[in-house]
Amino acid sequence: MRNIKLTLEYDGTDFSGWQIQPRRRTVQGVVTRSLQTILREPVKVIGSGRTDAGVHARGQAANFTTTASLSPEEIRRALNALLPDDVAVRRVQRVGPDFHARYSALQREYLYRIALQPTALQRRYTWQVHRPLDLSLMQRGAAALQGIHDFSAFCLGPEKNRHNRCQVFETRMRRVGGEIHFRITANRFLHSMVRILIDWLVRLGREQLPVERFTDLLDRDAVENSLRVVAPARGLCLMRVKYPA
Amino acid sequence: MRNIKLTLEYDGTDFSGWQIQPRRRTVQGVVTRSLQTILREPVKVIGSGRTDAGVHARGQAANFTTTASLSPEEIRRALNALLPDDVAVRRVQRVGPDFHARYSALQREYLYRIALQPTALQRRYTWQVHRPLDLSLMQRGAAALQGIHDFSAFCLGPEKNRHNRCQVFETRMRRVGGEIHFRITANRFLHSMVRILIDWLVRLGREQLPVERFTDLLDRDAVENSLRVVAPARGLCLMRVKYPA
Repeated sequence: MRNIKLTLEYDGTDFSGWQIQPRRRTVQGVVTRSLQTILREPVKVIGSGRTDAGVHARGQAANFTTTASLSPEEIRRALNALLPDDVAVRRVQRVGPDFHARYSALQREYLYRIALQPTALQRRYTWQVHRPLDLSLMQRGAAALQGIHDFSAFCLGPEKNRHNRCQVFETRMRRVGGEIHFRITANRFLHSMVRILIDWLVRLGREQLPVERFTDLLDRDAVENSLRVVAPARGLCLMRVKYPA
Repeated sequence: MRNIKLTLEYDGTDFSGWQIQPRRRTVQGVVTRSLQTILREPVKVIGSGRTDAGVHARGQAANFTTTASLSPEEIRRALNALLPDDVAVRRVQRVGPDFHARYSALQREYLYRIALQPTALQRRYTWQVHRPLDLSLMQRGAAALQGIHDFSAFCLGPEKNRHNRCQVFETRMRRVGGEIHFRITANRFLHSMVRILIDWLVRLGREQLPVERFTDLLDRDAVENSLRVVAPARGLCLMRVKYPA
């Protein structure tokens, strides 16, 4: 059996997220179906993690094993020819038998884009916030996330996880043209975590609350559900997943 | 009467171009309809020029006159609230009575984007050319366009124009990440001119013909129609229109 790694880009707009579900159009579903057509055998596609409905990816990672002898380049061409145009395979690599897209992943990086002006061309990929935002306040909030913290207050269903600690390696909040870009790299992300964080950070930027009100929620293990507001999916994109060299 | 200038951004994918046509969804049509709803009077929207079906704009310019006393900012907000999400108004300004979006324009700048790898996120805004392109050959071809030339060989219906001379102020051809970007600024553009030029430039990049075969067609007034191949609309975007200060 060969173990093959895929690097995938997709526009999440018309997908019910990554994970296969009955009667829904999902990324895992269309990739699995295309691979099975090409390889003529059952294929199980393992993703680095789920992305929710409407969330995009520039570098989602996945792997599968196959008995077929097609080269990575042959698989790449065949997949890109067969996949719908809102999914593209950027890279296909043969990897060792122990590689597992989910369990081998060391870091994931997400980008959230906020458009400060009405935009037609970026509307599928940004949250349009047409009010003044104080970037420096948002930067203070973002910087506070770095390190190991309990993110129970910033995810959906924290009680379902064994624990809610994440190690945030890096955050960056910066102005890019008419947009604000928030990048965050961590060892793991909890359910809706980036979208809940960005909603808070936007409220900081709108000066609706002091930065401390936000940072006080870090490492808290129980908060009211009403505090968890999830920003729109369309602004979020999984940029890359890092594995051991 | 007040004369008002609009700077518009649109995603051309779902439009039959700029110009109003019966029973077609056009940018001029939706902007006119929204303005008439807001201003409660007939409005004639003048564009800097037509863009074809599927062509995008970041900075299309238009103007109209009105008896209404709404401020530019009020018009901007009302329009953005009313327009479909594939059109956005970036700027609304009051201009002098002599301003005419088409006749006052001095320069137009277009960007054509070629994706060198399969892409899902940029598929609406790029022509995907998945073959090696020699950028330096394309740059030689692009540079040759600068100056005043007769572009009869590089437009559709040259016989319909009084003359086909255009003054090309600047061209730029460069690699940007996984894409090639071709920018061209001229006093005017003929029908499908950028898309015919880019098709030639891609053939240069694929080393299918010598650069001289392309440059020989500049300033020729009659060529076979079979030489005019029009590249896909989706890669083209009207970036800005320049007016006297």
